[in-house]
Amino acid sequence: MSQQNPKILALTGGVGGAKLALGLANLLTPDQLMLAVNTGDDFEHFGLHISPDVDTLTYTLSSLANTEYGWGRQDESWACMESIAQLGGETWFNLGDRDLALHLRRTEMLRQGQTLSQATTAIAQALGIRHPIVPMSDDSVRTQVHTKDGELPFQHYFVRDACKPKVTGFEFTGIEQASVQPQLLEWLQDATAVIICPSNPFVSVDPILNLPGMREALANSPAKVIAVSPIVGGSAIKGPTAKMMRELNIPCMADEVANHYGGLLDGFVLDELDKYLHGELNVTTAVAQSVMTSLDDKINLARTTLAFADDLNGI
Amino acid sequence: MSQQNPKILALTGGVGGAKLALGLANLLTPDQLMLAVNTGDDFEHFGLHISPDVDTLTYTLSSLANTEYGWGRQDESWACMESIAQLGGETWFNLGDRDLALHLRRTEMLRQGQTLSQATTAIAQALGIRHPIVPMSDDSVRTQVHTKDGELPFQHYFVRDACKPKVTGFEFTGIEQASVQPQLLEWLQDATAVIICPSNPFVSVDPILNLPGMREALANSPAKVIAVSPIVGGSAIKGPTAKMMRELNIPCMADEVANHYGGLLDGFVLDELDKYLHGELNVTTAVAQSVMTSLDDKINLARTTLAFADDLNGI
Repeated sequence: MSQQNPKILALTGGVGGAKLALGLANLLTPDQLMLAVNTGDDFEHFGLHISPDVDTLTYTLSSLANTEYGWGRQDESWACMESIAQLGGETWFNLGDRDLALHLRRTEMLRQGQTLSQATTAIAQALGIRHPIVPMSDDSVRTQVHTKDGELPFQHYFVRDACKPKVTGFEFTGIEQASVQPQLLEWLQDATAVIICPSNPFVSVDPILNLPGMREALANSPAKVIAVSPIVGGSAIKGPTAKMMRELNIPCMADEVANHYGGLLDGFVLDELDKYLHGELNVTTAVAQSVMTSLDDKINLARTTLAFADDLNGI
Repeated sequence: MSQQNPKILALTGGVGGAKLALGLANLLTPDQLMLAVNTGDDFEHFGLHISPDVDTLTYTLSSLANTEYGWGRQDESWACMESIAQLGGETWFNLGDRDLALHLRRTEMLRQGQTLSQATTAIAQALGIRHPIVPMSDDSVRTQVHTKDGELPFQHYFVRDACKPKVTGFEFTGIEQASVQPQLLEWLQDATAVIICPSNPFVSVDPILNLPGMREALANSPAKVIAVSPIVGGSAIKGPTAKMMRELNIPCMADEVANHYGGLLDGFVLDELDKYLHGELNVTTAVAQSVMTSLDDKINLARTTLAFADDLNGI
């Protein structure tokens, strides 16, 4: 088979997914890579529309991300938050002075009648990002975390309560009425691979997959679907994935992530640490060094994953 | 007549009015002074509810005002605005990082169902202000400036276009459906004086006076109504009052401010500069040094005005 021009759709949440997305963006042109981003984490705070995963991806791809914190912008200042505290306002969700500009600009565009996709594109372009960043839907989907202490909106669980409540399940409010962003469906029609980035399967990837019509679109697409494990050596690099698995009585192993995605997958990328651990998986696997610290790590994992996609496509 | 406990309602807009309000607040207890503030200048920007006159008064009374600019907070930083510019957003309305906190906090409270009065009170109390600051109405009234170039929302005329378009008239959108804030009507029932601060008669004071029922409430109140002239020596200390008068073919004299308020007034405070200029006024006048630079200037003008009110009340 002759060399095929890659056309990749990456499904991603925040930090971990954004790292692989950056690696992919370094290897693929804007015509070859589209990024579909979870918006189940979105919420309204102080009247502003905040899209944490879209923002993390935007900051990561524009080299503005604060890599120390894993969220927000570098060179940030906090005068506004200090003043909010002085006024007795809520301070559990940190909004840097520069980061606030993005939320203000997005909120303004939304109130002027633009879609979340349009606002995301305008902001990404203003920051010099060339690859398309596409929110999974322009409709409101809000992840609710069911816990032993009751139901919590995602950011309240994740940030305010620091993931402490024990998780019993998840709900994506509004998902039945939400539509997959049309650009994503169009892209899938002749995509060569879908890469599920090493994001949290339950709260970053499932909202995308569970949108009405999304699994059918993946099944009908010629694309090979590959997931990259967010679990390495029995724990998550960052974030609550491992803790959630334990609380949901799922063994915290990479295998279980593959099982979670089930028949959707054509391929699964495991970390080298897990290559002797995984049992009988009903999916082809590839092994990679998947802990991404440097930019080279990100590019290397992207290269391995893209080569795996080529293998699966018989190229 | 025996000494009467003063109960003052001050009607005020932004800068000039806020200066006299600060003088009054230095002489009167919170039981003796209520501040009724114009909200015709309010607007929504970046999804935030901004109340410029309420904010100027709040910053002035809490000693946070930037006295150099005449708007916003002292010790301000501009990281957010710089980033908004980077994102291609509108930068004509300057929002400092610390000032933004107030707009965020207010907007949050409004979205939680609180009234503008409740939000104003909560913010004022958080900043240690003891005198009641009361928006003229909890309902939306929006000043539209009619100009030779068309109709402009007030902040677009005032800030974005720097008052350059020639004014032909004013309109207070929504005023027919708006109610005077009930605390103001209750206060008026046994007030001893109403002081119309030296604010712009057309765009700061008229929105308050033109609220349905406000003129009747003033007429039915035992309070003597006194206006302090914003015109000194044929020009305005700050702001577009004088320019507006010229464009409306009104001679730019203090007398014309008294004529503008007409039969509403029991007394009028003129600057010393104007004491020989004013013609036949159908209202009792007092003369004061009305240019307020220092805190002492503000307190002195407040003292003169309060003494004038006592005179008018026969005390």
